[in-house]
Amino acid sequence: MPKIEVFPLVGIPEVRKGSDLARMILDAASTHSFAFKNRDIVVVKQKVVSKAEGRLVRLASVAPTRRALALAAKEGKDPKVVELILRESVRVVRTGHGVIITETRQGFVCANSGIDQSNVPKGYVALLPLSPDATAKRLRARLQASTRRRLAVVITDTFGRPWRNGQTDVAIGSSGIAPLVSYAGRRDRFGYRLKVTEPAVVDEVAGAAELAAGKLDQIPVAVVRGVRYDDGDDGVASLIMDPERDLFR
Amino acid sequence: MPKIEVFPLVGIPEVRKGSDLARMILDAASTHSFAFKNRDIVVVKQKVVSKAEGRLVRLASVAPTRRALALAAKEGKDPKVVELILRESVRVVRTGHGVIITETRQGFVCANSGIDQSNVPKGYVALLPLSPDATAKRLRARLQASTRRRLAVVITDTFGRPWRNGQTDVAIGSSGIAPLVSYAGRRDRFGYRLKVTEPAVVDEVAGAAELAAGKLDQIPVAVVRGVRYDDGDDGVASLIMDPERDLFR
Repeated sequence: MPKIEVFPLVGIPEVRKGSDLARMILDAASTHSFAFKNRDIVVVKQKVVSKAEGRLVRLASVAPTRRALALAAKEGKDPKVVELILRESVRVVRTGHGVIITETRQGFVCANSGIDQSNVPKGYVALLPLSPDATAKRLRARLQASTRRRLAVVITDTFGRPWRNGQTDVAIGSSGIAPLVSYAGRRDRFGYRLKVTEPAVVDEVAGAAELAAGKLDQIPVAVVRGVRYDDGDDGVASLIMDPERDLFR
Repeated sequence: MPKIEVFPLVGIPEVRKGSDLARMILDAASTHSFAFKNRDIVVVKQKVVSKAEGRLVRLASVAPTRRALALAAKEGKDPKVVELILRESVRVVRTGHGVIITETRQGFVCANSGIDQSNVPKGYVALLPLSPDATAKRLRARLQASTRRRLAVVITDTFGRPWRNGQTDVAIGSSGIAPLVSYAGRRDRFGYRLKVTEPAVVDEVAGAAELAAGKLDQIPVAVVRGVRYDDGDDGVASLIMDPERDLFR
């Protein structure tokens, strides 16, 4: 059985608006003699994508609406941050205990519309990338062209979840990898036909990369090697549950 | 930066009631010349724990109550399975589209009280282990005594989640590893004090192990190496969110 390996890619410099992420990844790999192999999965944290794509907002430039002021007072949050949370969302799912859970414009249900203040310059916040699947696709094309390897790209963010404490990294964008592995219809060793088993491989890859990169180490890129995955370019948008089937709306 | 490695442990024979899982793991490692190292995390799938602990139930032996019959009819499920789902739960969280989401006696919120029919003999279902943290603790003691290595143990199951299609493996029991890594109070490179970042490292380890072991391959054990984790023996029970803070009850 092949093992899986997760390599943190050290040496990515501070990312700014307009930074060429593909170039930075290739340079860091080259500097550290890291050679990409076919079917490696390049995992990139949302924060550097948001920075490169100019998705930092200076809080001083934000004028909160009355709705944002009221919600901010209720949840004990900065009204300017709440204003951005509302702007980046299509609906508010739950609020309480200082938490605002929304459905983002990209379709993700998460705290604070995915906006956060860590690892960004003081006075700024980072919004989610507008279209993480498209970013993954562009990044993949660049990385494949330079390395001449068959690669996949996954963009990740750190989300909480209901019922359990703590957060895990999950995929918010992907290219070159089917987000789900479908076992539906296959049979187990007892001949039982598997009905609904569809491992969300992109989310497990995201978590594995987080284990290698960590939060404080300023390592925004990891490479996951050895995962058996299906080819596919549906992106993480295809993971979003049909509202008709969603029991938690 | 150290890499992370995930080794599927091949060669575990079919597990039956009373099987000595620790012995089976040690034998499989020995057969394949796999040498445990200090701080390796041994990840074991729920199904083999349930089998070893006699948590298979013959469906023919189950008499459904009226409540189970009604819910089974509504959701198009086997009344005997629904009876077991209800017995294994402390409350029903949501039902619909053929899915019954409960809070289990162990405190997990998941589909069908974690009961499933794959990879078990025909006519049987597997219930969750009664106390997966205790199982992890016992297994860890046995494995450490034999290998003379400092190990951690994580027991995993496959759970769906709201809002996203597919499932991921998550931890249901652990020993020798703090389930959360707390960054609260630490500062990022811009001096911002991190507030709520607590990666659920046991869940990310569970997902990483699933990537290596897969569903159909009959590999119920994987070893994860290279993860930086805190020592701790609170178990996965400590991950269960305080109902007072849970916005999705």
